[in-house]
Amino acid sequence: MYAPLLAHIARYVALNTAEEELLVSYLQTQTVARKGFLLTQGQICPASYFVLRGCLRTYFVSEKGTEQIIQFSIENWWVADYTSLDTRTPSAYYIQAIEPTEVVVFDQRVQEEVFRQIPKLERYFRLILQRLAAVNQFRVKYLFDLSGEARYHHIQSMLPAFVQRVPQYMLASYLGVTPEFLSKIRSK
Amino acid sequence: MYAPLLAHIARYVALNTAEEELLVSYLQTQTVARKGFLLTQGQICPASYFVLRGCLRTYFVSEKGTEQIIQFSIENWWVADYTSLDTRTPSAYYIQAIEPTEVVVFDQRVQEEVFRQIPKLERYFRLILQRLAAVNQFRVKYLFDLSGEARYHHIQSMLPAFVQRVPQYMLASYLGVTPEFLSKIRSK
Repeated sequence: MYAPLLAHIARYVALNTAEEELLVSYLQTQTVARKGFLLTQGQICPASYFVLRGCLRTYFVSEKGTEQIIQFSIENWWVADYTSLDTRTPSAYYIQAIEPTEVVVFDQRVQEEVFRQIPKLERYFRLILQRLAAVNQFRVKYLFDLSGEARYHHIQSMLPAFVQRVPQYMLASYLGVTPEFLSKIRSK
Repeated sequence: MYAPLLAHIARYVALNTAEEELLVSYLQTQTVARKGFLLTQGQICPASYFVLRGCLRTYFVSEKGTEQIIQFSIENWWVADYTSLDTRTPSAYYIQAIEPTEVVVFDQRVQEEVFRQIPKLERYFRLILQRLAAVNQFRVKYLFDLSGEARYHHIQSMLPAFVQRVPQYMLASYLGVTPEFLSKIRSK
Protein backbone atom coordinates (compact mmCIF):
# COMPACT_ATOMS: atom_id res chain seq x y z
CA MET A 1 0.00 0.00 0.00
CA TYR A 2 2.84 2.39 0.89
CA ALA A 3 5.08 1.08 -1.91
CA PRO A 4 4.74 4.17 -4.17
CA LEU A 5 5.76 6.48 -1.32
CA LEU A 6 8.70 4.29 -0.31
CA ALA A 7 9.81 4.14 -3.97
CA HIS A 8 9.56 7.94 -4.14
CA ILE A 9 11.62 8.37 -0.98
CA ALA A 10 14.20 5.89 -2.34
CA ARG A 11 14.86 8.25 -5.26
CA TYR A 12 16.31 10.73 -2.76
CA VAL A 13 17.51 8.87 0.36
CA ALA A 14 18.21 5.23 1.24
CA LEU A 15 16.06 4.00 4.12
CA ASN A 16 16.77 0.52 5.48
CA THR A 17 13.92 -1.93 6.09
CA ALA A 18 13.67 -1.07 9.78
CA GLU A 19 13.38 2.63 8.96
CA GLU A 20 10.77 1.95 6.29
CA GLU A 21 8.71 -0.10 8.75
CA LEU A 22 9.07 2.55 11.42
CA LEU A 23 7.93 5.27 9.04
CA VAL A 24 4.95 3.24 7.83
CA SER A 25 3.89 2.63 11.43
CA TYR A 26 3.28 6.39 11.73
CA LEU A 27 1.34 6.73 8.47
CA GLN A 28 -2.24 6.11 7.48
CA THR A 29 -4.05 6.01 4.19
CA GLN A 30 -7.29 7.75 3.39
CA THR A 31 -9.64 7.40 0.47
CA VAL A 32 -11.60 10.37 -0.74
CA ALA A 33 -14.60 10.05 -3.02
CA ARG A 34 -14.85 12.31 -6.04
CA LYS A 35 -15.80 15.80 -4.79
CA GLY A 36 -14.80 14.85 -1.23
CA PHE A 37 -12.47 17.11 0.79
CA LEU A 38 -9.13 16.58 2.53
CA LEU A 39 -9.19 20.14 3.84
CA THR A 40 -11.77 22.89 3.96
CA GLN A 41 -11.39 26.62 4.47
CA GLY A 42 -11.27 27.54 8.16
CA GLN A 43 -9.93 24.15 9.23
CA ILE A 44 -6.36 23.77 10.53
CA CYS A 45 -4.45 21.66 8.01
CA PRO A 46 -4.08 18.33 9.82
CA ALA A 47 -1.42 16.63 7.71
CA SER A 48 0.71 16.53 4.61
CA TYR A 49 -0.71 14.21 1.96
CA PHE A 50 1.04 12.06 -0.65
CA VAL A 51 -1.15 11.05 -3.59
CA LEU A 52 -1.19 7.28 -4.24
CA ARG A 53 -3.83 7.49 -6.96
CA GLY A 54 -6.30 10.09 -8.15
CA CYS A 55 -6.19 13.84 -8.52
CA LEU A 56 -6.82 16.75 -6.14
CA ARG A 57 -7.28 20.45 -6.62
CA THR A 58 -6.32 23.15 -4.11
CA TYR A 59 -8.49 26.24 -4.44
CA PHE A 60 -9.83 29.23 -2.56
CA VAL A 61 -13.02 31.18 -2.92
CA SER A 62 -12.20 34.70 -4.06
CA GLU A 63 -13.75 37.88 -2.70
CA LYS A 64 -16.03 37.82 -5.73
CA GLY A 65 -17.21 34.33 -4.79
CA THR A 66 -15.51 32.41 -7.59
CA GLU A 67 -13.38 29.31 -7.05
CA GLN A 68 -9.76 29.97 -7.96
CA ILE A 69 -7.55 26.89 -8.36
CA ILE A 70 -3.94 27.34 -7.34
CA GLN A 71 -2.67 23.76 -7.65
CA PHE A 72 -3.43 20.28 -8.95
CA SER A 73 -1.87 17.21 -7.33
CA ILE A 74 -1.60 13.76 -8.93
CA GLU A 75 0.27 10.55 -8.12
CA ASN A 76 3.64 11.04 -6.35
CA TRP A 77 2.94 14.65 -5.36
CA TRP A 78 2.77 15.98 -1.82
CA VAL A 79 0.07 18.47 -0.97
CA ALA A 80 -0.64 20.56 2.14
CA ASP A 81 -1.46 24.10 3.18
CA TYR A 82 2.02 24.89 4.47
CA THR A 83 0.98 28.12 6.16
CA SER A 84 -1.74 26.41 8.16
CA LEU A 85 0.46 23.37 8.83
CA ASP A 86 3.33 25.54 10.12
CA THR A 87 1.44 28.10 12.12
CA ARG A 88 -1.62 26.05 13.19
CA THR A 89 -3.91 28.76 11.83
CA PRO A 90 -7.14 28.22 9.87
CA SER A 91 -6.60 27.41 6.22
CA ALA A 92 -7.60 29.76 3.40
CA TYR A 93 -7.94 26.76 1.05
CA TYR A 94 -9.97 23.77 0.07
CA ILE A 95 -8.25 20.55 -1.04
CA GLN A 96 -10.79 18.51 -2.97
CA ALA A 97 -10.67 15.24 -4.92
CA ILE A 98 -11.66 15.57 -8.57
CA GLU A 99 -11.29 11.80 -9.10
CA PRO A 100 -11.64 8.95 -6.61
CA THR A 101 -8.41 9.48 -4.69
CA GLU A 102 -6.23 7.63 -2.22
CA VAL A 103 -3.57 9.43 -0.19
CA VAL A 104 -0.97 8.69 2.46
CA VAL A 105 -1.63 10.83 5.53
CA PHE A 106 1.48 12.17 7.30
CA ASP A 107 -0.23 13.59 10.37
CA GLN A 108 1.20 16.89 11.61
CA ARG A 109 1.13 15.60 15.20
CA VAL A 110 3.64 12.82 14.47
CA GLN A 111 5.90 14.66 12.04
CA GLU A 112 8.43 15.93 14.58
CA GLU A 113 8.69 12.50 16.19
CA VAL A 114 9.22 10.83 12.82
CA PHE A 115 11.96 13.33 11.90
CA ARG A 116 13.60 12.71 15.28
CA GLN A 117 13.60 8.95 14.74
CA ILE A 118 14.49 8.98 11.03
CA PRO A 119 16.65 12.06 10.43
CA LYS A 120 17.26 10.99 6.81
CA LEU A 121 13.72 12.14 6.10
CA GLU A 122 14.80 15.72 6.79
CA ARG A 123 16.84 15.40 3.60
CA TYR A 124 14.00 13.86 1.61
CA PHE A 125 11.64 16.67 2.50
CA ARG A 126 14.32 19.32 2.02
CA LEU A 127 14.82 18.10 -1.55
CA ILE A 128 11.06 17.85 -2.19
CA LEU A 129 10.55 21.38 -0.86
CA GLN A 130 13.48 22.72 -2.87
CA ARG A 131 11.83 21.34 -5.99
CA LEU A 132 8.55 22.93 -4.91
CA ALA A 133 10.35 26.27 -4.45
CA ALA A 134 11.58 25.96 -8.05
CA VAL A 135 8.07 25.19 -9.34
CA ASN A 136 6.62 28.12 -7.41
CA GLN A 137 9.23 30.62 -8.62
CA PHE A 138 8.38 29.54 -12.13
CA ARG A 139 4.65 29.77 -11.48
CA VAL A 140 4.88 33.36 -10.25
CA LYS A 141 6.99 34.15 -13.31
CA TYR A 142 4.51 32.78 -15.78
CA LEU A 143 1.52 34.35 -14.07
CA PHE A 144 3.21 37.68 -14.74
CA ASP A 145 4.85 36.89 -18.03
CA LEU A 146 2.81 34.67 -20.27
CA SER A 147 -0.47 35.26 -22.04
CA GLY A 148 -3.32 32.85 -21.28
CA GLU A 149 -2.60 31.04 -24.52
CA ALA A 150 1.12 30.69 -23.81
CA ARG A 151 0.33 29.37 -20.31
CA TYR A 152 -1.89 26.71 -21.79
CA HIS A 153 0.73 25.57 -24.30
CA HIS A 154 3.34 25.57 -21.57
CA ILE A 155 1.21 23.40 -19.27
CA GLN A 156 0.33 21.12 -22.16
CA SER A 157 3.98 20.49 -22.98
CA MET A 158 5.15 20.24 -19.34
CA LEU A 159 2.26 18.27 -17.91
CA PRO A 160 0.26 16.57 -20.68
CA ALA A 161 -1.24 14.11 -18.14
CA PHE A 162 -2.92 17.02 -16.36
CA VAL A 163 -4.44 18.49 -19.48
CA GLN A 164 -6.07 15.15 -20.28
CA ARG A 165 -7.36 14.45 -16.77
CA VAL A 166 -8.61 17.76 -15.49
CA PRO A 167 -12.02 19.15 -16.53
CA GLN A 168 -11.71 22.07 -18.89
CA TYR A 169 -13.31 24.65 -16.60
CA MET A 170 -10.87 23.73 -13.80
CA LEU A 171 -7.90 24.02 -16.13
CA ALA A 172 -9.17 27.46 -17.15
CA SER A 173 -9.31 28.48 -13.48
CA TYR A 174 -5.75 27.26 -12.90
CA LEU A 175 -4.50 29.18 -15.93
CA GLY A 176 -6.38 32.33 -14.95
CA VAL A 177 -8.47 32.45 -18.15
CA THR A 178 -12.17 32.02 -18.88
CA PRO A 179 -13.47 28.58 -19.99
CA GLU A 180 -14.58 30.19 -23.27
CA PHE A 181 -11.08 31.49 -23.93
CA LEU A 182 -9.55 28.08 -23.15
CA SER A 183 -12.04 26.37 -25.44
CA LYS A 184 -11.03 28.72 -28.26
CA ILE A 185 -7.32 27.97 -27.71
CA ARG A 186 -7.90 24.21 -27.63
CA SER A 187 -9.95 24.20 -30.83
CA LYS A 188 -7.06 25.85 -32.71
CA MET B 1 30.99 38.21 10.08
CA TYR B 2 28.88 35.05 9.94
CA ALA B 3 27.17 35.77 13.27
CA PRO B 4 23.76 36.72 11.77
CA LEU B 5 23.63 33.46 9.81
CA LEU B 6 24.68 31.37 12.81
CA ALA B 7 22.04 33.12 14.93
CA HIS B 8 19.43 32.41 12.26
CA ILE B 9 20.38 28.72 12.12
CA ALA B 10 20.26 28.56 15.94
CA ARG B 11 16.57 29.47 15.81
CA TYR B 12 15.94 26.13 14.12
CA VAL B 13 18.74 23.69 15.03
CA ALA B 14 21.51 23.59 17.63
CA LEU B 15 24.98 23.42 16.09
CA ASN B 16 27.96 22.94 18.40
CA THR B 17 31.05 25.12 18.04
CA ALA B 18 32.90 22.53 15.95
CA GLU B 19 29.97 22.30 13.53
CA GLU B 20 29.69 26.07 13.31
CA GLU B 21 33.40 26.35 12.52
CA LEU B 22 33.17 23.57 9.95
CA LEU B 23 30.23 25.24 8.25
CA VAL B 24 31.92 28.63 8.18
CA SER B 25 35.03 27.05 6.61
CA TYR B 26 32.87 26.27 3.55
CA LEU B 27 31.30 29.72 3.28
CA GLN B 28 32.39 33.00 1.79
CA THR B 29 31.04 36.50 1.91
CA GLN B 30 30.55 38.76 -1.05
CA THR B 31 29.78 42.45 -1.23
CA VAL B 32 27.72 43.81 -4.06
CA ALA B 33 27.58 47.50 -4.91
CA ARG B 34 24.22 49.11 -5.51
CA LYS B 35 22.99 47.99 -8.95
CA GLY B 36 25.54 45.12 -8.97
CA PHE B 37 24.42 41.57 -9.77
CA LEU B 38 24.66 38.26 -7.92
CA LEU B 39 23.09 36.44 -10.86
CA THR B 40 22.25 37.38 -14.43
CA GLN B 41 19.89 35.75 -16.91
CA GLY B 42 21.56 32.91 -18.81
CA GLN B 43 24.04 32.19 -16.01
CA ILE B 44 23.83 28.98 -13.98
CA CYS B 45 22.96 29.96 -10.39
CA PRO B 46 26.25 29.38 -8.55
CA ALA B 47 25.08 29.45 -4.94
CA SER B 48 22.39 30.14 -2.38
CA TYR B 49 22.82 33.54 -0.73
CA PHE B 50 21.99 34.71 2.78
CA VAL B 51 21.62 38.48 3.15
CA LEU B 52 23.78 39.95 5.93
CA ARG B 53 22.88 43.55 5.11
CA GLY B 54 21.25 45.33 2.21
CA CYS B 55 18.44 44.52 -0.16
CA LEU B 56 18.19 42.54 -3.40
CA ARG B 57 15.53 42.20 -6.04
CA THR B 58 14.95 39.11 -8.20
CA TYR B 59 13.42 39.97 -11.56
CA PHE B 60 13.08 38.79 -15.12
CA VAL B 61 12.70 40.70 -18.36
CA SER B 62 9.28 39.98 -19.83
CA GLU B 63 8.56 39.27 -23.47
CA LYS B 64 7.50 42.90 -23.75
CA GLY B 65 10.91 43.99 -22.48
CA THR B 66 9.82 45.26 -19.07
CA GLU B 67 11.47 44.27 -15.81
CA GLN B 68 9.12 42.23 -13.62
CA ILE B 69 10.15 41.82 -9.97
CA ILE B 70 9.18 38.53 -8.35
CA GLN B 71 10.94 38.86 -5.01
CA PHE B 72 12.77 41.20 -2.65
CA SER B 73 15.31 39.86 -0.15
CA ILE B 74 16.54 41.67 2.95
CA GLU B 75 18.55 40.73 6.04
CA ASN B 76 18.10 37.09 7.20
CA TRP B 77 16.52 35.93 3.92
CA TRP B 78 17.94 33.27 1.63
CA VAL B 79 17.77 33.87 -2.10
CA ALA B 80 18.59 31.67 -5.10
CA ASP B 81 17.14 30.57 -8.40
CA TYR B 82 16.14 27.10 -7.21
CA THR B 83 15.40 25.78 -10.71
CA SER B 84 18.82 26.74 -11.98
CA LEU B 85 20.50 25.61 -8.76
CA ASP B 86 18.80 22.19 -8.88
CA THR B 87 19.03 21.42 -12.55
CA ARG B 88 22.23 23.31 -13.52
CA THR B 89 20.35 25.08 -16.29
CA PRO B 90 20.67 28.77 -17.26
CA SER B 91 18.70 31.11 -15.04
CA ALA B 92 15.70 33.08 -16.24
CA TYR B 93 16.35 35.71 -13.56
CA TYR B 94 18.52 38.57 -12.45
CA ILE B 95 19.36 39.01 -8.76
CA GLN B 96 20.46 42.62 -8.28
CA ALA B 97 21.41 44.73 -5.27
CA ILE B 98 19.23 47.79 -4.79
CA GLU B 99 21.31 48.92 -1.80
CA PRO B 100 24.98 48.22 -0.98
CA THR B 101 24.64 44.58 0.03
CA GLU B 102 26.67 41.92 1.76
CA VAL B 103 25.76 38.24 1.48
CA VAL B 104 26.98 34.87 2.69
CA VAL B 105 27.71 32.64 -0.32
CA PHE B 106 26.80 28.96 0.10
CA ASP B 107 28.40 27.65 -3.09
CA GLN B 108 26.42 24.94 -4.88
CA ARG B 109 29.59 22.87 -5.36
CA VAL B 110 30.11 22.43 -1.60
CA GLN B 111 26.48 22.03 -0.54
CA GLU B 112 26.31 18.25 -0.72
CA GLU B 113 29.56 17.89 1.19
CA VAL B 114 28.36 20.28 3.90
CA PHE B 115 25.06 18.38 4.27
CA ARG B 116 27.03 15.12 4.50
CA GLN B 117 29.24 16.50 7.24
CA ILE B 118 26.55 18.42 9.13
CA PRO B 119 23.27 16.52 8.64
CA LYS B 120 21.48 18.87 11.06
CA LEU B 121 21.55 21.46 8.29
CA GLU B 122 19.13 19.31 6.28
CA ARG B 123 16.60 20.18 8.96
CA TYR B 124 17.42 23.89 8.95
CA PHE B 125 16.95 24.13 5.20
CA ARG B 126 13.86 21.91 5.27
CA LEU B 127 12.23 24.33 7.71
CA ILE B 128 13.37 27.39 5.73
CA LEU B 129 12.01 25.89 2.52
CA GLN B 130 8.75 24.90 4.19
CA ARG B 131 8.31 28.52 5.22
CA LEU B 132 9.12 29.59 1.65
CA ALA B 133 6.47 27.16 0.36
CA ALA B 134 3.96 28.85 2.67
CA VAL B 135 4.95 32.33 1.43
CA ASN B 136 4.72 31.22 -2.19
CA GLN B 137 1.28 29.61 -1.80
CA PHE B 138 0.12 32.86 -0.33
CA ARG B 139 1.73 34.90 -3.08
CA VAL B 140 -0.02 32.93 -5.84
CA LYS B 141 -3.27 33.37 -3.91
CA TYR B 142 -2.99 37.12 -3.65
CA LEU B 143 -1.89 37.55 -7.26
CA PHE B 144 -5.19 35.97 -8.19
CA ASP B 145 -7.33 37.31 -5.41
CA LEU B 146 -6.49 40.81 -4.36
CA SER B 147 -6.81 44.08 -6.20
CA GLY B 148 -3.64 46.14 -6.63
CA GLU B 149 -4.74 48.34 -3.74
CA ALA B 150 -5.40 45.40 -1.42
CA ARG B 151 -2.00 43.91 -2.29
CA TYR B 152 -0.31 47.17 -1.33
CA HIS B 153 -2.10 47.38 2.02
CA HIS B 154 -1.30 43.74 2.67
CA ILE B 155 2.41 44.21 1.95
CA GLN B 156 2.45 47.39 4.00
CA SER B 157 1.02 45.61 7.05
CA MET B 158 3.06 42.41 6.63
CA LEU B 159 6.39 43.94 5.60
CA PRO B 160 6.52 47.65 6.51
CA ALA B 161 10.35 47.58 6.29
CA PHE B 162 10.11 46.76 2.60
CA VAL B 163 7.69 49.52 1.79
CA GLN B 164 10.06 52.06 3.32
CA ARG B 165 13.23 50.76 1.69
CA VAL B 166 12.24 49.86 -1.82
CA PRO B 167 11.88 52.51 -4.56
CA GLN B 168 8.27 53.10 -5.48
CA TYR B 169 8.56 51.95 -9.11
CA MET B 170 10.06 48.64 -7.94
CA LEU B 171 7.31 48.14 -5.39
CA ALA B 172 4.78 48.77 -8.18
CA SER B 173 6.45 46.08 -10.32
CA TYR B 174 6.37 43.59 -7.43
CA LEU B 175 2.70 44.30 -6.84
CA GLY B 176 1.86 44.07 -10.54
CA VAL B 177 0.49 47.64 -10.75
CA THR B 178 1.66 50.77 -12.54
CA PRO B 179 3.79 53.33 -10.63
CA GLU B 180 1.01 55.90 -11.22
CA PHE B 181 -1.58 53.60 -9.63
CA LEU B 182 0.70 52.94 -6.63
CA SER B 183 1.31 56.66 -6.21
CA LYS B 184 -2.45 57.24 -6.14
CA ILE B 185 -2.94 54.54 -3.47
CA ARG B 186 -0.13 55.90 -1.31
CA SER B 187 -1.39 59.46 -1.43
CA LYS B 188 -4.76 58.34 -0.01
